[in-house]
Amino acid sequence: MIVLALDVYERDKALKIAGDVKDYISMVKVNWPLIVGSGLDVIKELKEKTGLKVIADLKLADIPNTNRLIAKKVYEAGADYVIVHSFVGKDSVLAVKELGEVIMIVEMSHPGALEFINPLTDKFIEMANEIKPFGVIAPGTRPERIKYIRERLSREIKILTPGIGAQGGKALEAIKAGADYIIVGRAIYSSENPREAARRIYEEVKGWSSG
Amino acid sequence: MIVLALDVYERDKALKIAGDVKDYISMVKVNWPLIVGSGLDVIKELKEKTGLKVIADLKLADIPNTNRLIAKKVYEAGADYVIVHSFVGKDSVLAVKELGEVIMIVEMSHPGALEFINPLTDKFIEMANEIKPFGVIAPGTRPERIKYIRERLSREIKILTPGIGAQGGKALEAIKAGADYIIVGRAIYSSENPREAARRIYEEVKGWSSG
Repeated sequence: MIVLALDVYERDKALKIAGDVKDYISMVKVNWPLIVGSGLDVIKELKEKTGLKVIADLKLADIPNTNRLIAKKVYEAGADYVIVHSFVGKDSVLAVKELGEVIMIVEMSHPGALEFINPLTDKFIEMANEIKPFGVIAPGTRPERIKYIRERLSREIKILTPGIGAQGGKALEAIKAGADYIIVGRAIYSSENPREAARRIYEEVKGWSSG
Repeated sequence: MIVLALDVYERDKALKIAGDVKDYISMVKVNWPLIVGSGLDVIKELKEKTGLKVIADLKLADIPNTNRLIAKKVYEAGADYVIVHSFVGKDSVLAVKELGEVIMIVEMSHPGALEFINPLTDKFIEMANEIKPFGVIAPGTRPERIKYIRERLSREIKILTPGIGAQGGKALEAIKAGADYIIVGRAIYSSENPREAARRIYEEVKGWSSG
């Protein structure tokens, strides 16, 4: 199943693309650049336009009370899931989970993630198994890590993997390795024909997806 | 020197308090709850109202490119400093520092910080000494930790300490331990007389502050 990552600033562009590709995706992901560029209302507008659930990729990493204040506004604005960092500790994650569904980060894919975050993956998986979030974020670019995480993560917790590029095969590799949702951004929204790009990825993975 | 932490949702309340206490503070700190509640324009409005610099306490913790996209908007909106997490790695911090002044988190004060963040303080100090941000965030509630960090941090990097409560003495303790800026929120904005509360803290610490 495909999550469309709308890593753009502009409300109109975000709504247009989401509407164009909605038949081939399962959820929409928004992040801070779009929220600061367009305001929180874009979440409700995206839901109305697509009929799909929205993930707010806030990467919350504050103390419990501030995490709670931010998440409250964003859930009220219509977000179905909020992405939180495991790194700030269990209390900060639980403060958000009290208000709605969360997705925890257990590993990232940029070079700097190797310094502190990824060495702690096992601990974050342990925390996820205890807290039972809707899902976890794992690096879409590294199927062997998806497999590693899938083997250690409670079966009911979903794996969502960003970083799926334009290259054919990558999406399917991530799914085969255990990803439940592949998160695709640029490969769709920067395509000359976003609908066709989304359809191709959809066709590529549909035989393997669970839903 | 005092940084006013405007941990409130409402633009009008934020502007009123900042205006009332501006004579006794050095900078204003805004965070996501205020930004999502009021929009980014509140940063410029606060600057106009107070004539002071504004810290955007975003606790950025994303991949370099997304950190950059968020920070760009927030610096453009008038923020003078952006607070970033060290744990996402050097590349993510540098992506923000290319655009403007940053403040790095080297330790936090909520219970969950003991799980992953605070055990890495030494590494984060090392990173700060290399990157040379404007300042670092250290826990205002624990003077012995401020002292520890001050002893290891390059002298030109400032220490900013949140968590300064309403109780007399705490502010001065943090300053004596090596804090350059104490960050005060509720003790000012929840006071019946914010201006008087700010004045009292100002008088308490002014003999010790460096500027």
